[in-house]
Amino acid sequence: MRITIIGSGNVATHLGAAFKNAGHQIVQVYSRNMQHAALLAYHIGAGAVDDLNLINSETDVFIISVKDDAIIPVAKALAKHQKLTVHTSGATDLEALAGINIKAGVLYPLQTLSKIKEVDFNTVPLCIEGADNETTELLIHLAETISKKVYSVSSAQRRVLHLSAVFACNFPNYLYGVAQQLLAAQNMEFDMLRPLILETAQKVRDHLPQDVQTGPAVRNDRVTMAAHLQMLQNEPWLQEIYALLSQGIIKMDNPGHEPE
Amino acid sequence: MRITIIGSGNVATHLGAAFKNAGHQIVQVYSRNMQHAALLAYHIGAGAVDDLNLINSETDVFIISVKDDAIIPVAKALAKHQKLTVHTSGATDLEALAGINIKAGVLYPLQTLSKIKEVDFNTVPLCIEGADNETTELLIHLAETISKKVYSVSSAQRRVLHLSAVFACNFPNYLYGVAQQLLAAQNMEFDMLRPLILETAQKVRDHLPQDVQTGPAVRNDRVTMAAHLQMLQNEPWLQEIYALLSQGIIKMDNPGHEPE
Repeated sequence: MRITIIGSGNVATHLGAAFKNAGHQIVQVYSRNMQHAALLAYHIGAGAVDDLNLINSETDVFIISVKDDAIIPVAKALAKHQKLTVHTSGATDLEALAGINIKAGVLYPLQTLSKIKEVDFNTVPLCIEGADNETTELLIHLAETISKKVYSVSSAQRRVLHLSAVFACNFPNYLYGVAQQLLAAQNMEFDMLRPLILETAQKVRDHLPQDVQTGPAVRNDRVTMAAHLQMLQNEPWLQEIYALLSQGIIKMDNPGHEPE
Repeated sequence: MRITIIGSGNVATHLGAAFKNAGHQIVQVYSRNMQHAALLAYHIGAGAVDDLNLINSETDVFIISVKDDAIIPVAKALAKHQKLTVHTSGATDLEALAGINIKAGVLYPLQTLSKIKEVDFNTVPLCIEGADNETTELLIHLAETISKKVYSVSSAQRRVLHLSAVFACNFPNYLYGVAQQLLAAQNMEFDMLRPLILETAQKVRDHLPQDVQTGPAVRNDRVTMAAHLQMLQNEPWLQEIYALLSQGIIKMDNPGHEPE
C-alpha cells in the first residue's frame, strides 16, 4: 500500500520503519519540525513536508501519530483528500474522527517505543478498530504485514488497554529508576539489578503475576517492611510509594503463593 | 564441598539444586515440615530431617535459608558443630551472627525465586560477605561454582540492594497484576500485555530507566492522566497509586527523554 506518515515521534518512527521493511511505499512524512520530518523520511525513503497543504493526495492511507490533542485538527486538514485516515492513539476514541467526513480507523501498537531502542515489530500487539467492517478488514490485513499479533478491539477496550499499559510499563520503569538511584547513592551499579528486572518480567510469560509475587509484603514480613521504611526516612516520597504498594500486595489475592 | 541446606523455601530449593548441579554433595536438608524437607532432599540426593538435633556434623557449610526471624535461633542450634554457617538473607546483617561462636558469612542471591519457575543460576547475582578475609575468599569460590556474577558487598550495601529489589521486582510484579485485573474486567487476556512487560524490562538492559521512560506522565499529558483517574473512579486505591507514581515520573529528571 501507499502510506503517508503524519508525525515523527516514537510511534511514527517505528511504524514507518516497519511498513517500509514490509515492502509498503511510504509516500511522505509530515512533521511541524522539518528536521524531524526529513530525518525519518530519509530513513524510510519518503518525501518530507512540514506543511499540511503540501500533502500528496496520491496515497492509500494517512497514519496520524501525533499528540492526542492534535489528532482532530490534523484529520480535518487531511479530510479533503478523502482517503482512509487512521490514528495510533490508545487514549483517543474512533468516535473522535466521526464528525469528519472520512473513512476512519485506529491502529494502536501496545508497546513501549523509544527511538533509541530497536524493537521486533513482529511481536508488537496491534489493536485495530475500523469505522465499518470493510475498514476493519483492510486494517487487519495491513497490520498483519508487520505483526503476528493483531487484535480487533473496541474503543472502550482500547482505553482500558492504554490504562493497563501505564501500570504494566510506565510505572514499573519508573520504579526501576528509583531502584537505580538507591543503588547509585551507595556506589553500586545498576547492572547488579538487571538480571532481577529481566527475570521478574520473564516470570509472567507463563504465570499470572499474583502466582509469582515475592518479597516482604506478600510474606507480611512487618520487621523487614519497617526497616525499609526506616531506610527511606529522608525520602518521604519513596516512603509513601513503599507503604502504598506494600499495602496493595498485602491486600491482594495470591492463591498460588507459597510462603518463603 | 559438603553442603547442608537449612530450609525448604524458594531460595533453599533453587540454591540446593544449583549446588547439586555444580557437583557439590548435599548432605542433608532440614525443614520443620518433614514433607517439605523430603521433597527437596529427594530432588538433590540428600537426607531429610525435621529436627535440628539430627543434623550431621560431617559437612563443610550450613546454608541457612529460613525466615529472617528464625536465622539466629537456627544458627545457635548449629553452633556446636563449629562449621562455616552462612545465611542467604538480604535484610539481615552479618553482625546478627557475630554473637554466636561460629565462622559466619552471607550468600545473598539477588533474584526473584519461585519454586514453580526454573532459573538459570549462572546469571543470578550472588552477593557475598564473610566475617574474615579467608571466609570471604572461600565463599566467593563456592559462589563462582554456580554463578558468573559474584559480588563482594558489605551488610550496609546488601540492605540497600534488598530495598532496591523491592522497587525493581516486587512492586513491578504487583503492578503487572493490577494491569491483568483491569484487562480481565473487560474480558481481555493478559497475553496482550506480555510483550509490553518483556520489552519494558529488556529496554533497561542497555539504557538507564529515566532515558527510556514513556507514557502520559513523562509527557505531562494532563488530559490523558485525568481520563485515566476518571476510569479508576470505583477503585480509589488504584487512583491513589496512579496519582502518586505519575507525580513521581513528572518530578523525575529525564535528560535523555524526547517528547513523543
